[in-house]
Amino acid sequence: MAQTQARVGVYGLGTMGSALALNLAENGIEIAVSNREPDWIPSFLAEAGTLAERIKGVEDLAGFVASIASPRVIVLMIPSGAPVDAMIERLAPLLDENDTVVDAGNADFNETRRRTTTSTGFHFVGMGVSGGEEGARTGPSMMVGGSDHSWQQLAPMLEPIAARFQNDPCVAHVGPDGAGHFVKTVHNGIEYADMQMISEIYGLLRDGQGWEAPRIGALFSGWSDGKLASFLVETTARVLQTFDPTSNRPLVDMIRDQAGQKGTGRWTVIEALKLGQSASTIEAAVGARAWSSAKSARLAAATQFPGFGQIEIETEKFEDALFAGRVLAHLQGFEVLRAASAEYDWSLDLARIAEIWRAGCIIRSRLLDDLAPLLRQTPDRPVLLAEGMAELLSPEIPALRRVVGAAVSAGLPVPALSAGLAWFDTARQETGTANLIQAQRDAFGVHGFERTDAPGKHHGDWK
Amino acid sequence: MAQTQARVGVYGLGTMGSALALNLAENGIEIAVSNREPDWIPSFLAEAGTLAERIKGVEDLAGFVASIASPRVIVLMIPSGAPVDAMIERLAPLLDENDTVVDAGNADFNETRRRTTTSTGFHFVGMGVSGGEEGARTGPSMMVGGSDHSWQQLAPMLEPIAARFQNDPCVAHVGPDGAGHFVKTVHNGIEYADMQMISEIYGLLRDGQGWEAPRIGALFSGWSDGKLASFLVETTARVLQTFDPTSNRPLVDMIRDQAGQKGTGRWTVIEALKLGQSASTIEAAVGARAWSSAKSARLAAATQFPGFGQIEIETEKFEDALFAGRVLAHLQGFEVLRAASAEYDWSLDLARIAEIWRAGCIIRSRLLDDLAPLLRQTPDRPVLLAEGMAELLSPEIPALRRVVGAAVSAGLPVPALSAGLAWFDTARQETGTANLIQAQRDAFGVHGFERTDAPGKHHGDWK
Repeated sequence: MAQTQARVGVYGLGTMGSALALNLAENGIEIAVSNREPDWIPSFLAEAGTLAERIKGVEDLAGFVASIASPRVIVLMIPSGAPVDAMIERLAPLLDENDTVVDAGNADFNETRRRTTTSTGFHFVGMGVSGGEEGARTGPSMMVGGSDHSWQQLAPMLEPIAARFQNDPCVAHVGPDGAGHFVKTVHNGIEYADMQMISEIYGLLRDGQGWEAPRIGALFSGWSDGKLASFLVETTARVLQTFDPTSNRPLVDMIRDQAGQKGTGRWTVIEALKLGQSASTIEAAVGARAWSSAKSARLAAATQFPGFGQIEIETEKFEDALFAGRVLAHLQGFEVLRAASAEYDWSLDLARIAEIWRAGCIIRSRLLDDLAPLLRQTPDRPVLLAEGMAELLSPEIPALRRVVGAAVSAGLPVPALSAGLAWFDTARQETGTANLIQAQRDAFGVHGFERTDAPGKHHGDWK
Repeated sequence: MAQTQARVGVYGLGTMGSALALNLAENGIEIAVSNREPDWIPSFLAEAGTLAERIKGVEDLAGFVASIASPRVIVLMIPSGAPVDAMIERLAPLLDENDTVVDAGNADFNETRRRTTTSTGFHFVGMGVSGGEEGARTGPSMMVGGSDHSWQQLAPMLEPIAARFQNDPCVAHVGPDGAGHFVKTVHNGIEYADMQMISEIYGLLRDGQGWEAPRIGALFSGWSDGKLASFLVETTARVLQTFDPTSNRPLVDMIRDQAGQKGTGRWTVIEALKLGQSASTIEAAVGARAWSSAKSARLAAATQFPGFGQIEIETEKFEDALFAGRVLAHLQGFEVLRAASAEYDWSLDLARIAEIWRAGCIIRSRLLDDLAPLLRQTPDRPVLLAEGMAELLSPEIPALRRVVGAAVSAGLPVPALSAGLAWFDTARQETGTANLIQAQRDAFGVHGFERTDAPGKHHGDWK
């Protein structure tokens, strides 16, 4: 690398850090890299090939910091939690007040908020990066939370490396402090729900209609060009049609039905609850993964509570039902974002968030392009009420009812699809049933209630 | 009161504190009382009538502590959170190492665990008290978390004042530190789910079958003697049959359909998630209360997404469905307790917890008496797998399917009933659909998967 200083430093040469560093270099950005284990640096540079001419590897931290042009940008791509705190502590004395440290890992946004407050003498940014290794290498979707100053520093190097949707780079300054990591958390929550709903439809076709994996894959493949067009539906089509030479079977049939999970799905549900929101489709996805890993319990339960029936539904209903479920999962996610924006005074632009999710990230889909303009209109009311939402959603609801009803009756699990539908039916119930709950609470706890015909708090003279 | 020292001090003369103090005095226990606002003390003593001869009111804290026989027991019945910490700080210098301070409020068990650790120089107990004002006055159910030493002090005065189920006092030393408040939190979570399920059945009868409140109340009244026998079903029958002279209508029809909530329902769901459990029926109840309070949004949504259909189901199916839903909500709650017991090394006795909930508390029911012996057998596997559970639950499941299916198809919300059923169907699915989720995760994130036919971690050669 030339004697000029680097425009940005990347610390952490694991899968994601390496990919992001190569993406920067490939886009003509001079970078410095470093890593806790110094011997990763030469092997990374060797792998970088000709790109190495724009990359300077530096073993010691002070030298790494000094090799970056001031005001500096240092991107950390290291395990979240304590390692980030330790790194900040080591970096702090080496930084100037206009420098920016970016945590590009999957941090808990509460920690990012704390770090923003405790980081004095430099700027701290929490940035969500979606797209996995391939995305980081060729174009991720990035959600930046931090100061305007930091965004001015970051934009010129993030915009070239971001994924693009019709030439619009999928990166935005979504808000201050923890906003970037919060938005990334909700992205992952929606990803959980979407994957779960796809799996539920797969399960109904497999167990309720006796379809083999390749046939289900072909169906998903057909959906890839329609309203369900998305990375996850394409991926589903692809994996269902992959053959396993070892067993001479579809590969998916040879995979254990036990899914792991990291923290972000769970975090989304917890933060939703704290904000008075119900991300029930995501809760269902998290719960389903938990049961999946309890395989021996499920085997025992299947013996004690055996049996399921068949399902007879026209095939196109599954597409409509999955679309309705996907819309509802997205609405839950955006509603959580809306509540967080109000709670933390973030002024989140929901439409822009939908836009930067249209490429590069795991949940990229035609739906996000459909939703963006609707979300632009209505920052002041639930996203379900956005103008045009009824036109998008209502035609698909009967199929969702049909599929959920058939699954419930056959005994096949549809936790996420049914949670989405229940959320929708609860939201649109003009006269709910909480009057009874208020009556009960007053009868046993003297909580009081409001009357429909008179102001103030009342108590009942319960018999 | 005589010159002898008090056996226990009660600090905090609000609704619950006063009721508990009178209950103690009525059971022959000499008590001292105090309160932040000292002028509440004389009015409390006046209200106490002849019981005042066993009650000593003391304004200043040092005098209050000195009036209690050593080793002391001091019960705090004050708002949870910061007031409890402030009170502990004031009390600490006045206490001896064998004294016990009991927080009898609805504390977050995490705070109780912290206070147990930071309380040096005395014992700290977190005690859940259920039954509302009436329970506290005439016999609550109490869940004690703390040291054996404290339990030895407390048992002789709690057993006489507790509710009784066939002469068995509804109080137990459930475990150390935060165990008592945790168990109380889960109790409240189950209460949320049970109330929500009752309200869902009420809504189906009201909106799907056009029944008036008194008719629905009469139906619930009939259920009060059967398998659904419980305080909440009795209360429901009672409130639905209460007449409002002002409007000349059933009172429940005049109550706004907007329910409030405090923290415990939400806490249960959050703690469940942290423990890798899915308390989805409780999440549904919390979510339904949240939507209930968004009345103007619901009115708008009802205009944009209008309409619901009728339901035609034999009336007895509703009883069976509600029973199945209730069982499932309880199983979710007990499963959360089982997971917490393992996580925090509490050795919770699930059967004993069911027993002390059989009287005094809001969720008291015949079901808890049915469940207790089943829970005694199986501390080492999910409660769903307890011997006898299939006999209890399976006969009722078809009705639950029927009711949920009809509601889904009519567009009437049954979030908690459907979440319970989805949880059940997920748990009993021998071959789940997480194989597809693992395939997706490997295809886009190189997470790897396990094979059914070979050990180790594998990756797919996805097309």
